[in-house]
Amino acid sequence: MGGNKYTIGIDFGTESGRAVLVETKTGKEIATSIYSYENGVIDDKLPLDGDPVQLEPEWALQDPQDYIRTFQNTVPDVLSQAGVNAEDVIGVGIDFTACTMLPVKSDGTPLCQLLEYRRNPHSWVKLWKHHAAQPEADKINATARRLEEPWLDRYGGKISSEWFFAKTLQILDEAPDIYDAADRLIEAADWVVWQLTGVEKRNSCTAGYKAMWSKREGYPNDDYFKALHPHLEKVVDEKLSRTIQPIGEKAGGLTAQAAEWTLLKEGTAVAIANVDAHVSVPAATVAEPGRMVMIMGTSICHMVLGEEEQRVEGMCGVVEDGIIPGLYGFEAGQSGVGDIFAWFLNNCIPEEYCIEAGKRGVNVHQLLEAKAASQKPGQHGLLALDWWNGNRSVLVDVALSGLLIGATLSTTPEDIYRALIEATAYGTRVIIEAFERNGVKVDELVACGGLPEQNKMLMQIYADVTGRNFKISASKQTPALGSAMFGAVAAGSRAGGYDTIFDAATHMAGLKDEVYQPIPENQKTYDRLYAEYLRLHDYFGRGENNVMKTLKQIRDEVS
Amino acid sequence: MGGNKYTIGIDFGTESGRAVLVETKTGKEIATSIYSYENGVIDDKLPLDGDPVQLEPEWALQDPQDYIRTFQNTVPDVLSQAGVNAEDVIGVGIDFTACTMLPVKSDGTPLCQLLEYRRNPHSWVKLWKHHAAQPEADKINATARRLEEPWLDRYGGKISSEWFFAKTLQILDEAPDIYDAADRLIEAADWVVWQLTGVEKRNSCTAGYKAMWSKREGYPNDDYFKALHPHLEKVVDEKLSRTIQPIGEKAGGLTAQAAEWTLLKEGTAVAIANVDAHVSVPAATVAEPGRMVMIMGTSICHMVLGEEEQRVEGMCGVVEDGIIPGLYGFEAGQSGVGDIFAWFLNNCIPEEYCIEAGKRGVNVHQLLEAKAASQKPGQHGLLALDWWNGNRSVLVDVALSGLLIGATLSTTPEDIYRALIEATAYGTRVIIEAFERNGVKVDELVACGGLPEQNKMLMQIYADVTGRNFKISASKQTPALGSAMFGAVAAGSRAGGYDTIFDAATHMAGLKDEVYQPIPENQKTYDRLYAEYLRLHDYFGRGENNVMKTLKQIRDEVS
Repeated sequence: MGGNKYTIGIDFGTESGRAVLVETKTGKEIATSIYSYENGVIDDKLPLDGDPVQLEPEWALQDPQDYIRTFQNTVPDVLSQAGVNAEDVIGVGIDFTACTMLPVKSDGTPLCQLLEYRRNPHSWVKLWKHHAAQPEADKINATARRLEEPWLDRYGGKISSEWFFAKTLQILDEAPDIYDAADRLIEAADWVVWQLTGVEKRNSCTAGYKAMWSKREGYPNDDYFKALHPHLEKVVDEKLSRTIQPIGEKAGGLTAQAAEWTLLKEGTAVAIANVDAHVSVPAATVAEPGRMVMIMGTSICHMVLGEEEQRVEGMCGVVEDGIIPGLYGFEAGQSGVGDIFAWFLNNCIPEEYCIEAGKRGVNVHQLLEAKAASQKPGQHGLLALDWWNGNRSVLVDVALSGLLIGATLSTTPEDIYRALIEATAYGTRVIIEAFERNGVKVDELVACGGLPEQNKMLMQIYADVTGRNFKISASKQTPALGSAMFGAVAAGSRAGGYDTIFDAATHMAGLKDEVYQPIPENQKTYDRLYAEYLRLHDYFGRGENNVMKTLKQIRDEVS
Repeated sequence: MGGNKYTIGIDFGTESGRAVLVETKTGKEIATSIYSYENGVIDDKLPLDGDPVQLEPEWALQDPQDYIRTFQNTVPDVLSQAGVNAEDVIGVGIDFTACTMLPVKSDGTPLCQLLEYRRNPHSWVKLWKHHAAQPEADKINATARRLEEPWLDRYGGKISSEWFFAKTLQILDEAPDIYDAADRLIEAADWVVWQLTGVEKRNSCTAGYKAMWSKREGYPNDDYFKALHPHLEKVVDEKLSRTIQPIGEKAGGLTAQAAEWTLLKEGTAVAIANVDAHVSVPAATVAEPGRMVMIMGTSICHMVLGEEEQRVEGMCGVVEDGIIPGLYGFEAGQSGVGDIFAWFLNNCIPEEYCIEAGKRGVNVHQLLEAKAASQKPGQHGLLALDWWNGNRSVLVDVALSGLLIGATLSTTPEDIYRALIEATAYGTRVIIEAFERNGVKVDELVACGGLPEQNKMLMQIYADVTGRNFKISASKQTPALGSAMFGAVAAGSRAGGYDTIFDAATHMAGLKDEVYQPIPENQKTYDRLYAEYLRLHDYFGRGENNVMKTLKQIRDEVS
């Protein structure tokens, strides 16, 4: 392989972690390795022997040891697959789901690995989709509104229950002993970089998007935290850090132990941690305003760059330098997309469809797509609100739930499947329109993630519903490629990498040739259906009819 | 069997016809025989050789030859099963779905049996659930409102698209040649009695409930029909009859041909035709006000007796002597109940449930009931509007459609199943409250039909939702028993039958011992959920948000 240099990007997802070994000069992905977390998403019982520890509804945890096992399994595997020497790997980058956070001791040991704490669910990693901190999020929002906190507007006026201080406050509320025992509260993204480098360095992306930090103003002040809870007053100084590293920097070099896990060389450059969605933006070629990157998987994360700070309803956040240095990174999201389709496939597909799929030699998803793709927009007569997992943008309300309307005795599974896909497309259109209404241009869409690869019908529906061209990132592992790009930047040009993420994007990122263009006839019908969607969206989502919340309240009372 | 006498009741349903041979003295059901219609419900293509004749959406037809085959197959079968001599069978009664109607020649020959007409779908029997005559129903209603027709109030202010003159006007609108060729337009109920007796006799029940006739005022006058359509002016005199026989009378005796079909004696007494739902009321022991009989199957028909005529919103009809002589018979209905559950079982049950049911040795319905029955009310967090097949009472609107709200990623098939059952119970409660608001008492419910036998959970849910005791008719074939009772009345006491339906009910009808009583704790939760149901019912059903209609309109435009 001559003088070629390589970097490795490691992407920590919801169910698994994956490493990609990339040729630095071209961005070519040489080898990929996936590790399915041994303990997966922990949402029923803790993975412990002895009396079972049952979790409450809405909980979702992970085991930090699964992250270490990801290093141990995937990095040696890509090296071996590629036949590349460790000497030629110049950098490592990682990206993570967020906010995924955990309490640790001052040496980085997770509390859930200590016998005295491990039977308390609060000692484990709270995964991004842990939704049990809604009361805390409500308090964070109410307190911020009362104190007229200036940072609230940067997050569309609402902090999500998924974010850092909602999860932190839930620990303090429900397990003050765990809160006290935690020397540090940290994003899992930063924790794995700590495990690789031996140094605790916190990244600007999660701090900005998930922990109310900004480059110009830092964290909310101590008075705010005190108003939230007396014990929280000094949380930043006691358990976080005011030193935040901009993305694109180097965190440090691999420790001897991390070199042993990975079979890489001790001292190999490690980039500051990043978030899966955000790291994908340059990996999808986007380093300028006007093109929105959508990470499409279990959920969708929407990112677009702008030259000015704007306030957008229900936006997840705007962070200066949050995605690309020198620009404002805007983020929005849909909390359930692929998750909804998977729910549907697991719960609502009749046996005869499974048999038919088997006969045709396709999977059930492919069978449904084949049956649904020939339909014209509107033909199934259905409309759905895509809130099976709540609504992130623009309503920011996890208590909302899914709705299907228009069912008749002739409704088929493929009808419902198509209606669910369309509903998620309407959800994306709501977000685009909120951005554009507030001066953030969205001229074109670029997809990455698992869904676009698998579903041409979905891509066309999104183009038709949004009325915009829809392209696809060339990489099948866009976040991991993005991390490898940041690994190359951490290594720097002298080592065979790059000096800026712009340079790395120019050489390492690309798009597929195919473009999904809106079909005018379909657009017309979808415009009419979208008007109906919007009306239901506002009726059920903006408080006129709170039946979704009432149903959850009754459910919680009787359960 | 000594001097025992017997009557045979024949019940013509949606998918099959069934005969029951009953001991007249006791009401004991000696033998039952079911014939599944060879051509079933015709809703796709006409059952003809040659080029296929495709039906439009919303059509539902039947083949009149299936009714004759029902006589030929079931009556000889019950005689043979029971070992009863034809001499000891003193009477025959029939009941039918309604309005199920057909065009025939003056000798009774159905137009669909004549080569020149049979490829026209309008020549076939229009089944009760044929829903393609909505424009005609709209015109019937608008014209009646404009002319301030007094009879409109007897039908809750709206004539259904399922009824006689909507179907008649659809034939005239879409197939004037078929309309002209039809010497008679007749309920299938009366047509089969004609086939048995050789005489055309029309019954007061279908005339009253489905064809705007009343004992005191007769049919709407010719001017009304003329306003509806110039060609319709003389429809009553030309194609119907002003002579209407009260239920409980004898229509005539079996012809030689009918005796040959059935192996009964020529001249055996045949009762005037009746409707499946209405004939069930005395068979369920109800011959007085205050107890509502619910025929629960694919749909629900609700019947209650009253001493005064009352106007009730969305009631299907009130007919003097329509159910029991001397009382007003009130009817309401839900157009989709068992049909919705069957749709759900056919379209939304995952393979693993089928496998689990197989392992447990139960059917999927039983598995779902087992999984759902342990839930507390409200626990699944779902709410549905039970309008998969439109809404009959109280909204009388076939363009409404089904809605499910509250879905999350944790929602299971049994959750949805239970929510659908509950939705149909809420639908019944809407009807009960409409009756009581207008002075028609409903103190207790009596069920008959296929559903109550199979589903204890459903029965308890209905008791809890409505807050009323719920009992079950002792007969598994309540309509057929009712027909056998009317057969006994047609034969009269001198032949070994009875002189009145009250006498027949006293001796031949009964209830099961089990009573489903409302559980106060469940009632409380259901009261809260019902309030949410009502709000959605009114929002989507009374014109505030017409999205259900818009979706159907878009569907029809793009298809």
